Amino acid sequence: MSAAIQPATEAFDQWAAAQLDTVEQALSAWVPEQAPAGLGQVMRYGVLDGGKRLRALLVLAAAEAVAPGVASVRVAALRAACAVELIHAYSLVHDDMPCMDNDVLRRGKPTVHVQYGEAMAMLAGDAMQALAFEVLTPESGPDAQALPPALQARLCARLARASGYVGMAGGQAIDLTSIGKPLDEATLRDMHRRKTGALLQASVLMGAECGLPPAGAWAGLSEYGAAIGLAFQVVDDILDVTHSAQSLGKTAGKDADAGKPTYVSVLGMDGARRQARELHVQAHAALERTGLPHHETLAWLADRVVQRDN
Amino acid sequence: MSAAIQPATEAFDQWAAAQLDTVEQALSAWVPEQAPAGLGQVMRYGVLDGGKRLRALLVLAAAEAVAPGVASVRVAALRAACAVELIHAYSLVHDDMPCMDNDVLRRGKPTVHVQYGEAMAMLAGDAMQALAFEVLTPESGPDAQALPPALQARLCARLARASGYVGMAGGQAIDLTSIGKPLDEATLRDMHRRKTGALLQASVLMGAECGLPPAGAWAGLSEYGAAIGLAFQVVDDILDVTHSAQSLGKTAGKDADAGKPTYVSVLGMDGARRQARELHVQAHAALERTGLPHHETLAWLADRVVQRDN
Repeated sequence: MSAAIQPATEAFDQWAAAQLDTVEQALSAWVPEQAPAGLGQVMRYGVLDGGKRLRALLVLAAAEAVAPGVASVRVAALRAACAVELIHAYSLVHDDMPCMDNDVLRRGKPTVHVQYGEAMAMLAGDAMQALAFEVLTPESGPDAQALPPALQARLCARLARASGYVGMAGGQAIDLTSIGKPLDEATLRDMHRRKTGALLQASVLMGAECGLPPAGAWAGLSEYGAAIGLAFQVVDDILDVTHSAQSLGKTAGKDADAGKPTYVSVLGMDGARRQARELHVQAHAALERTGLPHHETLAWLADRVVQRDN
Repeated sequence: MSAAIQPATEAFDQWAAAQLDTVEQALSAWVPEQAPAGLGQVMRYGVLDGGKRLRALLVLAAAEAVAPGVASVRVAALRAACAVELIHAYSLVHDDMPCMDNDVLRRGKPTVHVQYGEAMAMLAGDAMQALAFEVLTPESGPDAQALPPALQARLCARLARASGYVGMAGGQAIDLTSIGKPLDEATLRDMHRRKTGALLQASVLMGAECGLPPAGAWAGLSEYGAAIGLAFQVVDDILDVTHSAQSLGKTAGKDADAGKPTYVSVLGMDGARRQARELHVQAHAALERTGLPHHETLAWLADRVVQRDN
């Protein structure tokens, strides 16, 4: 049995476009134009105009699935969405640097260190990580009312763990030390569960936190997040082989050229495609197990992760 | 009128030595030996055995001044102390890298990128920043009881702001862009208030948060933190001129060689020394204004900041 990939409906596309506008405006308000010595401009260059915003959409869709139409939940989820995007953006800025992937092109533009120099790129990334936690901890105003202290603490806890040594940074360390080495599938999966999967899964769970889901929904939400987190990377590896730099907006064939193990190199192209399909089925099954009646948008996002061509 | 510099008493030295032991043990427990791909070892190399631990001592002394002898306050303050030290340690790891200060010696040892390579140094710094927020947000166990969610949220809020674009990262951006340029005293002060001052001041205020001080104490604590934050940097600039690499445990004369403006280059040696004395007086006066009866340890730390020879 395989979950059919539905054509994206117009309603979902409109939903996503509206969310992207909102997220972009919120990020533009929170990433400071006036930070000292041009640092704000460098941060804005690295954060704004940020492509798909899959992580933000996952946060917002999870919050909506758990507590549809609740204004204060929506306010909290928007902050969580922006915090996750800030962490993702900082990781790209640091990853692109010469001592890491040495990439010069990202989303069709020169990477941050190419544009502003390595020192400013490193600093801007560092400041973006701190800003993520600042966005999660509003101290006054209506947003502070929508994010009671207990929610702020839980969101900070999830984000710190997903982006630190257990999660994203740990996965990047495995990635760094595995260049040119043969990896088995289990190690490759462990690397990607941490490197990209942890933050994608945290996006789902942070969105859910904002809406206080019934206790029975957590396991399904967590499995859904893990499945699409891994599916995302499998599809990334497939696209890295099959697509040109132009359609990806970044350098293509880079991972294979760098001797990095990928799902395609470990499982072959057919194996990687089968893996993506299986994870897609798992994501849909996990959503059913949440018992949440309004999970259509999360289901559509799972389809989009597998269908995407960039 | 000038505050006399008291010789450090044995009791304070014993207090500091005991705190350092506790902080080192706590950091050793929280900075993971077993993180993926050797990342834990790199983090431990950058964090442990970390010298003076002035920031941790400020956190612990402020908590003790506000709520003397309260065990749960002490538990919370130890986490806050370690979180601040993790932020400070990550900033040193990133600062030392070739694209920033290109320093090869720190605390008498090769810097992290010299020992483990630039990519691992950048990643370890990133993971240390995330770990700081993880340490502030224990999710279960006795430490979670000592840090109720509202305290976790306030500590995260203060740490994020002090280390981000408004604070440390912003100050570093000014530093980066001011190399070789003449700076007036006001700009130099603004740079240092952010670069080192913000985190030192936050140390005092985070320690105080743990003990819930009377509302009237905040202004004095904040002024005390600002004064010693700036005094620390003025003394640093003086030591950079007067001391050898051996007594500093890092490369000496580096700032002047790099064409960086310092308090000595802007105010002259006599002017810098006068400035340090004035800030020392301000710190003591601010402590008196807190109305807190048990601020002896904070007073002693102010003396130590000005007296130190490394």
